[in-house]
Amino acid sequence: MSLVNTPKPPYYAVIFTSVQTDFDREGYGKAAQKMIELAEKEEGFLGIDTAREEIGITVSYWKNLDSILKWKNNIEHTAVRKKGKSSWYKAYTTRICLVEKEYSWKLNQ
Amino acid sequence: MSLVNTPKPPYYAVIFTSVQTDFDREGYGKAAQKMIELAEKEEGFLGIDTAREEIGITVSYWKNLDSILKWKNNIEHTAVRKKGKSSWYKAYTTRICLVEKEYSWKLNQ
Repeated sequence: MSLVNTPKPPYYAVIFTSVQTDFDREGYGKAAQKMIELAEKEEGFLGIDTAREEIGITVSYWKNLDSILKWKNNIEHTAVRKKGKSSWYKAYTTRICLVEKEYSWKLNQ
Repeated sequence: MSLVNTPKPPYYAVIFTSVQTDFDREGYGKAAQKMIELAEKEEGFLGIDTAREEIGITVSYWKNLDSILKWKNNIEHTAVRKKGKSSWYKAYTTRICLVEKEYSWKLNQ
């Protein structure tokens, strides 16, 4: 398991935090995986970090606001967001962020 | 479990992603909890979201860059970061981000 390697800033991050319902976890997992695969095909997609414990946090990285908007308007992504509201989420927050600085560190480097 | 309520943007987010070693998980957990308690006392601290699965993602929210810099220079926080490099982390990335837009949704609201 490794972290995303993003280019030198500036670039954009979309921070998506969520609380799940208890309903249809399997369907949710499949849809989440499918969305990652679709996002990876988008122009301007730079990578994604995701973890879920009591809450879920998914951070996707993008070249610019235009690439984020295109992903938002992707037809399959739009359909899945509706399903998210009707079935999978109790609450969520999306934050659109300009990444100004980045510092990385690795053991034995 | 609920998500952080942040003020209307703009404000700042610090996205900290990490991969842990297998060493001293208990010490890590205690230090992580202590750091959240300390950060909450800092002026300009707006909240924190955290989750760990294969990787850890912690997003803290701050009023401005000055409040982030003060927290970075906190003596206990600085000591814990050294311990993180020597014991707890295989790799980490810190991203300093300007939150430009935020959208929240809750069930039954």
